[in-house]
Amino acid sequence: MADRHEVSEAGAESPAVPSLRWGELPEGPVVVLLDQTRLPAEEVELVCTDVPALVQAIQTLAVRGAPLLGITGAYGVALAAARGFDVEEAAVALASARPTAANLGYGVRRAAEAYRGAAAGGAGPQEAAAAALAEARAVHAEDVEASARMAERGLELLGELLPGGGHRILTHCNTGALVSGGEGTALAVALAAHRAGELRRLWVDETRPLLQGARLTAYEAARAGMAYTVLADGAAGSLFAAGEVDAVLIGADRIAADGAVANKIGSYPLAVLARYHHVPFVVVAPTSTVDLATADGAGIEVEQRPGREVTEFSLPHRQGAGAVPGTGVAVAPLGSLAYNPAFDVTPAELVTAIVTEAGVVSPVTRERLADVCSVSRWRKSRSGNGMMAE
Amino acid sequence: MADRHEVSEAGAESPAVPSLRWGELPEGPVVVLLDQTRLPAEEVELVCTDVPALVQAIQTLAVRGAPLLGITGAYGVALAAARGFDVEEAAVALASARPTAANLGYGVRRAAEAYRGAAAGGAGPQEAAAAALAEARAVHAEDVEASARMAERGLELLGELLPGGGHRILTHCNTGALVSGGEGTALAVALAAHRAGELRRLWVDETRPLLQGARLTAYEAARAGMAYTVLADGAAGSLFAAGEVDAVLIGADRIAADGAVANKIGSYPLAVLARYHHVPFVVVAPTSTVDLATADGAGIEVEQRPGREVTEFSLPHRQGAGAVPGTGVAVAPLGSLAYNPAFDVTPAELVTAIVTEAGVVSPVTRERLADVCSVSRWRKSRSGNGMMAE
Repeated sequence: MADRHEVSEAGAESPAVPSLRWGELPEGPVVVLLDQTRLPAEEVELVCTDVPALVQAIQTLAVRGAPLLGITGAYGVALAAARGFDVEEAAVALASARPTAANLGYGVRRAAEAYRGAAAGGAGPQEAAAAALAEARAVHAEDVEASARMAERGLELLGELLPGGGHRILTHCNTGALVSGGEGTALAVALAAHRAGELRRLWVDETRPLLQGARLTAYEAARAGMAYTVLADGAAGSLFAAGEVDAVLIGADRIAADGAVANKIGSYPLAVLARYHHVPFVVVAPTSTVDLATADGAGIEVEQRPGREVTEFSLPHRQGAGAVPGTGVAVAPLGSLAYNPAFDVTPAELVTAIVTEAGVVSPVTRERLADVCSVSRWRKSRSGNGMMAE
Repeated sequence: MADRHEVSEAGAESPAVPSLRWGELPEGPVVVLLDQTRLPAEEVELVCTDVPALVQAIQTLAVRGAPLLGITGAYGVALAAARGFDVEEAAVALASARPTAANLGYGVRRAAEAYRGAAAGGAGPQEAAAAALAEARAVHAEDVEASARMAERGLELLGELLPGGGHRILTHCNTGALVSGGEGTALAVALAAHRAGELRRLWVDETRPLLQGARLTAYEAARAGMAYTVLADGAAGSLFAAGEVDAVLIGADRIAADGAVANKIGSYPLAVLARYHHVPFVVVAPTSTVDLATADGAGIEVEQRPGREVTEFSLPHRQGAGAVPGTGVAVAPLGSLAYNPAFDVTPAELVTAIVTEAGVVSPVTRERLADVCSVSRWRKSRSGNGMMAE
């Protein structure tokens, strides 16, 4: 179950609340999430004491974003182990909570394997739980590190692609500190450009239907003091046509072995617009988002979300916005059907570069992507504790 | 001033309410509008007794859509004349209420010229007012006729472009009976396909920020019994990629002499997607939307609307939705800037065809467009009463 705990009214002055933390309460361990459905109106923490609560938080998007889902999955397994629930059952429930998110399965696998390895080595339940928690902490720490590496590499890449500086970056959905143990993926690169004095404008697609751009990216951009402007997703075309976009930076939810990128619905039209206007289209994602077991974009399962996310409007400060039936205000006539895939898939040929913590893949080919992933995995296995050496 | 008059709760069974009508009340003539900001939740009529009320209705989008704005402008001049207000002042106020809409200026001009012509010919104020009203009625009747012609010609064109039948049509914004004295422009073509048993699916872009697709096109499609599905604007790309769109049909707010089409924001990205996927992109608009005095797309003034239409959400059944400050719910953090052009401009090279009442322009060139307009204008001047002969 999950308790709600109001942290503060949101605002530029209020302290940053971590998007996820592990807590040890007198009554047992918990996973504490910042409820992202209530941003930017309120900062409310969700205290999850069991796996069903975590699964619900994942499905209602209280917790969301590729890297953060990996961290959540890993801590979820650790929580099940620490509280004496069935770890294998928990792993299945967590990994299948959202089908497209590659990191979710990745994080769950890492913690579950640590748990099994310890148990197979003769560890008792407590020791095995500690191994799962240590692995979750490693996944978390790696993400902090990966985020910093992606920001560095991404900033460098922008410098190469756009030697004139003063970048005007268009982004979609939310890819900042809210989706990461660190500063995120695409938004971390924009933030690095901002700190380097090289960000002239951050164009923020509002990102329908759930408005993660207008609600979350704008919230993070405002806190960071970035020059940002929100727009309806359909208005991006006019910005391209006017020459007001120097590059597109987005994250990814799953990257297939051929470099096809599943990301928030609305990303693919940006890739087509970017190609038509000769603007770089850059994907920023850790190698943990790459799924070499999925051969190509056609093999990526795209999550279909409830139609009411489109036909109703749910206020962002309402609990479980967009996901709980009956909480929204009807926009379309009752009974209207809606097509509401959560993601779309951009083929590799439209992607200028994929920036990972282990290197930049450009041009995006199956071979180069596999190379970068193997470097990253070799480093990880060599460093033993899961931390990557540069 | 404007009075509000509740007609009915909206629903598939309720009678169709005309989007605009001229009324003669004991206290004087009025222009009665269906308040489109309150659809689909409620059918409420706005009774306008003077020009400022009409201008406000135009600016808040209570009345909207290219052909209907032309009709509104013409009746607005007739209203000023009939009520003894300054006709020239009224004409300027009405024509400048929204800068991009070509038909608005067209309708105002037609009625104002009729008024001036009568006055110059020695008519008294009452007779001149009657001449303005007669011309407004002619503009209205011509639109009914033009709508029927466009539907015929558009259906024929679809048959040529898509000989397999069973069309899956994507549309944007609202272009049906709500924008017309008749059945509209693009949606009239889709409706003709529906009646001919040739419409397999109408894909309805919700059309952010003001959701004219989800609110108004879905409302009209539901009433007509069409098979329709609403989607977030950003989801159209996935439909194209999956081969689920056979043609795009949209309306226009102004067409420049070179065939560049200004239409609701979000149209241009569809044109780029359509080109990339080799799907026909068809514009349906009467010749009164063609502005031969504007040489090219760069010359079209694009209306910038308040940022709060993007950063706040206004419930559709609230009075003046999207346009009255303080009535919306904040979505983005307070103080967020927004980029909110009402229209974008699609260059002629991305337009497969422009369907007008006087003929289909394809390929879209300056010469062919001028030809079709001259045919239409010659017919109109010959027929004398402003009605076009076939």
